[in-house]
Amino acid sequence: MVTERLKKQIRFILEIDKLKNIYRMTKIHDGTRRENDAEHSWHIALMAFLLSEYARDPGIDILKVMKMCIVHDLVEIDAGDTFCYDAQANLDKQEREQKAADRIFGMLPEDQGMELRALWEEFDAMETPEAKYAAAMDRLQPVLMNFLNKGGTWKEHNISKEQVVNRNRRIEDGAPALWELASQLIDEAVEKGLLRDDGKM
Amino acid sequence: MVTERLKKQIRFILEIDKLKNIYRMTKIHDGTRRENDAEHSWHIALMAFLLSEYARDPGIDILKVMKMCIVHDLVEIDAGDTFCYDAQANLDKQEREQKAADRIFGMLPEDQGMELRALWEEFDAMETPEAKYAAAMDRLQPVLMNFLNKGGTWKEHNISKEQVVNRNRRIEDGAPALWELASQLIDEAVEKGLLRDDGKM
Repeated sequence: MVTERLKKQIRFILEIDKLKNIYRMTKIHDGTRRENDAEHSWHIALMAFLLSEYARDPGIDILKVMKMCIVHDLVEIDAGDTFCYDAQANLDKQEREQKAADRIFGMLPEDQGMELRALWEEFDAMETPEAKYAAAMDRLQPVLMNFLNKGGTWKEHNISKEQVVNRNRRIEDGAPALWELASQLIDEAVEKGLLRDDGKM
Repeated sequence: MVTERLKKQIRFILEIDKLKNIYRMTKIHDGTRRENDAEHSWHIALMAFLLSEYARDPGIDILKVMKMCIVHDLVEIDAGDTFCYDAQANLDKQEREQKAADRIFGMLPEDQGMELRALWEEFDAMETPEAKYAAAMDRLQPVLMNFLNKGGTWKEHNISKEQVVNRNRRIEDGAPALWELASQLIDEAVEKGLLRDDGKM
C-alpha cells in the first residue's frame, strides 16, 4: 500500500526539481552558462567529504554536513538566488527565505519537515562546527569557479578584492587551510587583473 | 602552505565541474530541457536520506549511500551518458567507463582515488545493501520524472511497459515499498496512454 506519508515525500521530491531552474551568478567551468542551485549543491556536497581532512574540527559529522549541502538552497525555489554582493537584495532576504521555508518544508511529513528546516537554519546561522564547515564549502566553490573563469562574476560586476575577502574570510572558521588556499587564489586573481584591488586592505 | 595533495584535490574539484555538461535523456519537471548528471546526482542524494525508512535493510550506512549517489556518474565525464534502453550503446559501456575511471579517479591523491573508485564499483555491482538502495534511487528518479513529464523519455523513444518494468524491478531489491509505488505509477502511465503496453507482461 502506498501510504499518505510516502505520497507527501514524493510530491516534495517532484516539487524540489524546481531547484534546477534557479540560476546563480557563477558560471560553469567553460563560461557558457550560469550554474544552477542543484548543480552547485551537488558540487559542494562532494567537496564536503573530499576535503573533510581540512575541517577545523576533526570530529565533525560529515553526514550532517552533506545533508546541509544538499538542502541549503531549497528555499531559493520561492525566494530566488540572492547575489551575495547585492546589498539591497540582501535586506529582505531573510524574510523571503523564511516564507519559502514555511511552504517548502511544510510539504513534508511533519517530522521530516522539521528535520530539514532545522538543517537549513543551522547552516544559515553558521554557529556549529558542521555549519561553519558547510559554509566554507559554499563560499570556496564560487571562488574556485570565478578563478577558473578568468574573473567570472567578479569582473562582470566589478567586485573588489576587499568585497571578496570580506565575504569569504569566514572560510577560515570552518577550514583554515582552505582559507589559506582561497587567499592565495584571490591574490593571484588580483595579480592577473581578474579582480580589482582598490588598495583598501 | 598549500600542499601538493590539496592542489590535486582542487584540480579534481574543478575537473568534475564537467559533469554539469553531461546531459541525460530525462527532462526536468517543466519539460524545457534535459537534466544533467550533476543535478540528477543531487536529486538522488536527497532522495537517499529522505526515503531511507523504505530501505530493505534498515541498517544501511546512509553516508556511504550519499557518497555513492554523488560520485556514481563521474565516469560519464569521459564515457558520456548511456541511455539505459539503448542495447547497442550498452555493449561497450563497461570498457568506456573503466577507462574513464582510470583517468578521473587517477587525478586524486592515491588514497582518495581508491576510495572513490571503490564507491563507484560497489554502486555499479549492485550487490551490497547500500549499492542496492542507491541503485533504487537512481532508477526511481527517472520514473518519477517521466511520469511528471507526461511520458517524457518513454513516449519520445517508444519504450514499452515491459522494458520499463525490466529495467526498474530491481528497485525492489533496495526498497520494496518504492517498487510498489513505481509499479503503480507505471500502470497509471499505461492507463493514461503515456506508456505503450504491448501485452507481453
